[in-house]
Amino acid sequence: MSEQYVVGVDYGTLSGRALVVSVKDGRELASAVHPYAHAVISDALPTTPGSPLPPDWALQVPSDYVDVLRTAVPEAVRASGIDPADVIGIATDFTACTMVPTLADGTPLNELPQFADRPHAYVKLWKHHAAQGQADRINELAEQRSEAWLPRYGGLISSEWEFAKGLQVLEEDPEVYAAMERWVEAADWIVWQLCGTYVRNACAAGYKGILQDGAYPGDDFLAGLNPAFADFVNAKLDQPIGQLGRPAGTLTAEAAGWTGLPEGIAVAVGNVDAHVTAPAAQAVDAGQMVAIMGTSTCHVMSGSVLREVPGMCGVVDGGIVSGTWGYEAGQSGVGDIFGWFVDHGVPAYVREAADAAGIGVHEHLTELASKQPVGAHGLVALDWHSGNRSVLVDHELTGLIVGQTLATRPEDVYRALIEATAFGTRTIIETFNASGVPVEELIIAGGLSKNPLLMQIYSDVTRLPLSVIGSEQGPALGSALHAAVAAGAYADIRAAAKAMGSLNRAVVLPDEGRSKVYDRLFAEYTALHDHFGRGGNDVMHRLHALRREALAGGAA
Amino acid sequence: MSEQYVVGVDYGTLSGRALVVSVKDGRELASAVHPYAHAVISDALPTTPGSPLPPDWALQVPSDYVDVLRTAVPEAVRASGIDPADVIGIATDFTACTMVPTLADGTPLNELPQFADRPHAYVKLWKHHAAQGQADRINELAEQRSEAWLPRYGGLISSEWEFAKGLQVLEEDPEVYAAMERWVEAADWIVWQLCGTYVRNACAAGYKGILQDGAYPGDDFLAGLNPAFADFVNAKLDQPIGQLGRPAGTLTAEAAGWTGLPEGIAVAVGNVDAHVTAPAAQAVDAGQMVAIMGTSTCHVMSGSVLREVPGMCGVVDGGIVSGTWGYEAGQSGVGDIFGWFVDHGVPAYVREAADAAGIGVHEHLTELASKQPVGAHGLVALDWHSGNRSVLVDHELTGLIVGQTLATRPEDVYRALIEATAFGTRTIIETFNASGVPVEELIIAGGLSKNPLLMQIYSDVTRLPLSVIGSEQGPALGSALHAAVAAGAYADIRAAAKAMGSLNRAVVLPDEGRSKVYDRLFAEYTALHDHFGRGGNDVMHRLHALRREALAGGAA
Repeated sequence: MSEQYVVGVDYGTLSGRALVVSVKDGRELASAVHPYAHAVISDALPTTPGSPLPPDWALQVPSDYVDVLRTAVPEAVRASGIDPADVIGIATDFTACTMVPTLADGTPLNELPQFADRPHAYVKLWKHHAAQGQADRINELAEQRSEAWLPRYGGLISSEWEFAKGLQVLEEDPEVYAAMERWVEAADWIVWQLCGTYVRNACAAGYKGILQDGAYPGDDFLAGLNPAFADFVNAKLDQPIGQLGRPAGTLTAEAAGWTGLPEGIAVAVGNVDAHVTAPAAQAVDAGQMVAIMGTSTCHVMSGSVLREVPGMCGVVDGGIVSGTWGYEAGQSGVGDIFGWFVDHGVPAYVREAADAAGIGVHEHLTELASKQPVGAHGLVALDWHSGNRSVLVDHELTGLIVGQTLATRPEDVYRALIEATAFGTRTIIETFNASGVPVEELIIAGGLSKNPLLMQIYSDVTRLPLSVIGSEQGPALGSALHAAVAAGAYADIRAAAKAMGSLNRAVVLPDEGRSKVYDRLFAEYTALHDHFGRGGNDVMHRLHALRREALAGGAA
Repeated sequence: MSEQYVVGVDYGTLSGRALVVSVKDGRELASAVHPYAHAVISDALPTTPGSPLPPDWALQVPSDYVDVLRTAVPEAVRASGIDPADVIGIATDFTACTMVPTLADGTPLNELPQFADRPHAYVKLWKHHAAQGQADRINELAEQRSEAWLPRYGGLISSEWEFAKGLQVLEEDPEVYAAMERWVEAADWIVWQLCGTYVRNACAAGYKGILQDGAYPGDDFLAGLNPAFADFVNAKLDQPIGQLGRPAGTLTAEAAGWTGLPEGIAVAVGNVDAHVTAPAAQAVDAGQMVAIMGTSTCHVMSGSVLREVPGMCGVVDGGIVSGTWGYEAGQSGVGDIFGWFVDHGVPAYVREAADAAGIGVHEHLTELASKQPVGAHGLVALDWHSGNRSVLVDHELTGLIVGQTLATRPEDVYRALIEATAFGTRTIIETFNASGVPVEELIIAGGLSKNPLLMQIYSDVTRLPLSVIGSEQGPALGSALHAAVAAGAYADIRAAAKAMGSLNRAVVLPDEGRSKVYDRLFAEYTALHDHFGRGGNDVMHRLHALRREALAGGAA
């Protein structure tokens, strides 16, 4: 019998990646990446280039996702050299909460000519942060009514999620809302394209769709937000739930044509990029926190007990591995803050020195910053350039840096920004610890694990040994692993993780001397965190409001 | 009779400038600049390049000052085309408080071979900020003893001034202190070189030397700071006082040789760069505040009454114009913050765009920032990169910026930094207004008046009409004017200001719409100012301390 393979497809913020994996041992044969033609739309729609979108908008185009199936999947299979006939399953993971407004048959509204120039007809990407007003009202009402589901989300529903974004559509473009027969997680929409069946995955439904103990928020709650919103769940959201690793259906002839894979192979239930990474890193036990560090960081961890952690993103039964409680937390901005700084805050002389040394700007700044003793730059920053997901759940918070002098240099700021994200992670870990869900191991996945200074800082700041996922394509491998289970090659995700996942344990250890100095800096971070994030000074919110007003022409 | 001329020499932070001026009408004939060979020494002494100076040090070399007399003065006279014999007087102004440790004959200690490698034997430049510990103790003891002179300095003596810097010498290098027979303002030291007589000018003695109502702090106060400091005033500081505009003596043969000017002409009593600028801008009346805006900003204003303004630098009888109370306030960092940002925080694409447009980076950022409505950048900054002189008098405060997002661009930060300095100026003006010394007109001198955006922001933020000094060489013209009075060409400074000074009134007017938005941003600035500057959160001090510790090897 020939060897069997699976294909995992990871849908990121800017591109999709297909990975061909051996079912037997998780060996990665080849991968291919396809960037989305429309990337992230935050300035203006392609159809109306003269009409700028308001601040905090982030849209995408669904056909870009299908293009990944047409290009990256066959390219990866071709590059792997395998016979496509040996592929037994395909699975996908997606950014979340990323929402597609569709007709009942799954047609995205932006593909209808009458809606092509309507921003609300497009995909609202996870980092669309313009529904904060709606989220605030959801939280206020839920607290008022003591909704039982609220503590499952750390006490706060995010503006990134299904309800806030859906309510924004209703209130800002009722016509689009009326035409929208389904409000679909992109994670499920792509599976729908593959197998022709709309199955809602348990992960997204739980974390982003407020599905707890088998029920969504009730109609009376929704009516309290807006009378026209009362039937939102029944009319547009509710759908049969699929458990992670189960098949959603089989590959249609059309999708077989796109991908070059055999018609009829297993298509797994959709999944979320961060959550699917945990089993790829063999992190299926309590206490193993996986931090998937890219433009943002997502923290996922399984737990044997249900606890309410303030400011976590959510706790969902079977949200990571069926049969356990899946905990999620997150940091809205990490790698994208470093990228922003390198693009817009680093002078030519740094770039020239990096060029002269034949390395990238990130590497050069890392080298310079590595030479500093802890605290020598005199800076503390708040890593809120994209808001704060955990533990404050406030997307209108913004970045702050304190301590700059005329002697401050780019490597100082770079290091302070890395440290700020490490302090953000420590804040999350301490909150979990204090809530009875102790974090015992920190597993790093994602590209940032290649930065040795960052890794050491994270270990020193958290006083935890850092393990690193064995694969450079954690989410795609995680998807492949789910495809293998959906195809029946393994009994469950635990078994697949053991065979196909990989982890290098404790590759970085904390240094107590540095940790002690970081305790002092973390105390400063915490004081700033609480002052600016918990109501001591709401300047960030007011500046945000003034900015909107000024850009709308309301201010002078 | 041929026309008469005077020479004004302005000693700045990095260079000295000589200006040849007509006595009759203040016409400027020619000027020449000589940069100091050693510039500002903040890394290591030229004699011990391997030994880094601690943070916050800023030293200079006195012979650099004499080189200005040898080069810039004859060059300016030559360029002016006048007959040197028609020069009737010379006057100088200097940065302050800039202190030269000397022997009794004026020989600087750093010129003695045994002290050439001792940092404390060098000139402590105004921006030497390493005596903060000494300043803190001076303030504490003065407040404890309710010293009558303390309120004359807004309640706080600066680490930049004569006593804190002198005490630092005693405590850190007692040998140098013992050898130091005089502790001389550079403003007086250079006059000493010109006329052979050590006369202490009333301006520096009052503002920087704590001379009030004819007396210095008493021996028992000094002994309370350090028993060995008890005779500091009598042994090293006290000296006959010269009023501004009076002759200190006449040009010696040696100095005539250096400068090419006639031996025996009048040499005016020394003066301070900011204060000498006021009469050059015809600002000799109450309510006319002159802001001399360069790397830092100094605010000077005459007043008919004595009031105690919290956080002002000082009020001195005859400190600007004999017979009136001279008020001074200041901002430690202004143009140098913008310069630091352009040097270390602006990416290559901005520089390239500026090059393509054939303009400088400052001009390009100004153009971009000018297009924004007020508040559109969403930022507020604190302009404390070099500490805060007025009204907090704390040189260990540092810069802060809040509101950064991934959409923040260099022109946003540039504008926010300009606004921060304008808010700093408004804070000073409001403090004066509230203390019974109302500011009615804001007169801008110095190079920053050429930036139209900055000028409009300052007018909008302060709601004051801005006038601009007519001369581009305000301090040098002010010195020339004092030389004319010292030579007897005018009865007093008022008469000379009327004939030789110049002012363009109300060239920029505030816009009420913008002012209203700035009121909101100023409220945010004030909240941050008070939180971080008045004890709400002393993070800046702690980071400063940790930085020193880390650099000294104490932290990990």
